[in-house]
Amino acid sequence: MKLFIDSNHLSPYAMSAFVALREKAIPFESALVDLQRGEHLAAGYAGVSSTLRVPTLSHDGFNLSESSAICEYLEEAFPATPIYPANVQDRARAREIQAWLRSDLMPIRSERTTEVVFLRTPVPPLSDEARAAAERLFKAADGWLRQHGSTLFGTWCIADTDLALMLNRLVLAGDPVPEHLARYATEQWQRASVQEWVNTTRPAARTTG
Amino acid sequence: MKLFIDSNHLSPYAMSAFVALREKAIPFESALVDLQRGEHLAAGYAGVSSTLRVPTLSHDGFNLSESSAICEYLEEAFPATPIYPANVQDRARAREIQAWLRSDLMPIRSERTTEVVFLRTPVPPLSDEARAAAERLFKAADGWLRQHGSTLFGTWCIADTDLALMLNRLVLAGDPVPEHLARYATEQWQRASVQEWVNTTRPAARTTG
Ligand SMILES: [Ca+2]
Ligand SMILES: [Ca+2]
Ligand SMILES: [Ca+2]
Ligand SMILES: [Ca+2]
Repeated sequence: MKLFIDSNHLSPYAMSAFVALREKAIPFESALVDLQRGEHLAAGYAGVSSTLRVPTLSHDGFNLSESSAICEYLEEAFPATPIYPANVQDRARAREIQAWLRSDLMPIRSERTTEVVFLRTPVPPLSDEARAAAERLFKAADGWLRQHGSTLFGTWCIADTDLALMLNRLVLAGDPVPEHLARYATEQWQRASVQEWVNTTRPAARTTG
Repeated sequence: MKLFIDSNHLSPYAMSAFVALREKAIPFESALVDLQRGEHLAAGYAGVSSTLRVPTLSHDGFNLSESSAICEYLEEAFPATPIYPANVQDRARAREIQAWLRSDLMPIRSERTTEVVFLRTPVPPLSDEARAAAERLFKAADGWLRQHGSTLFGTWCIADTDLALMLNRLVLAGDPVPEHLARYATEQWQRASVQEWVNTTRPAARTTG
């Protein structure tokens, strides 16, 4: 089992796949891809990832990109320790959250890159557009967390890590975040699998995530 | 069962959820949301969709947004007519493709909106960035379609409809598309469930998708 990840460990999606593997205690090796040097565009990588992206999982000759697809594949191939909820509606909600975090909230993702999260790079105040996106994020997260508070569904699932990452783009930048959401994100961040990714030694690189 | 869709029927993601319901022969009613008038931002819609987006499925009081999550939910709740492949690796690939089409290829999606596809709006030539994205799309699609040609996995799945939509942004704009990929997209477009969406009466609206 091999996981291709960005060499700076800044991709939030590489983190999600990494956490999935660690939570399932699946042994794997990491293969570092230097996005700044364009290694994902080199001829060899197209043989690994049709979409030329990280993360990509390589398992017994089967190569798979897109972190949400990787998480789902790991869940099906290694079901012993689940990373998605067992309940059909909860599992659907986890998928909704994963899909939304990967396809919306662009102003937050561009003004609060993961350099803020993992390198603690200082940033200027949020634009009006990013503050509006943050309000949407807070309202959605508030609704999703109303029942359990410290997790989405009562026990941890991979969507908790993804949601905490998005919230921590703001928390760790010092932006105003409702206290209960900041607490959720900070508590989720303490998880051992997440802390292992957070504490990876990384160069002070100029890459966005 | 109710599906909230954009009132202009231009959202490619609403189309994907619509096709999923039709393929499974699940009776449902459509609820039209006028995005231009901001109906998705009105107070009532937040009670339906936490992310304020279309499509949203409402099933026995359970509301779910994000088209890929809706397709997966329908597959679990109504498994009789599958819309995903049965094989674990093929299903993983279908998810990879769905996730990629929803999170990448932005220059194609912005320069070839679904107005081109559904309203046949004339458009200027592609930018360099969009042509580069098109090349990435062609290479990926070529690899995925190499085995079967007319479908991704030998029998239709929902990712075929999503991939054909992306290719048809270019085909229907008159952009150069490799012949075998254009043929795949054109053939996929003839599917009855897709044609029903395509032939919906829609105003010549100024909305993007
Ligand atoms: Ca580097
Ligand atoms: Ca193995
Ligand atoms: Ca309208
Ligand atoms: Ca019902």
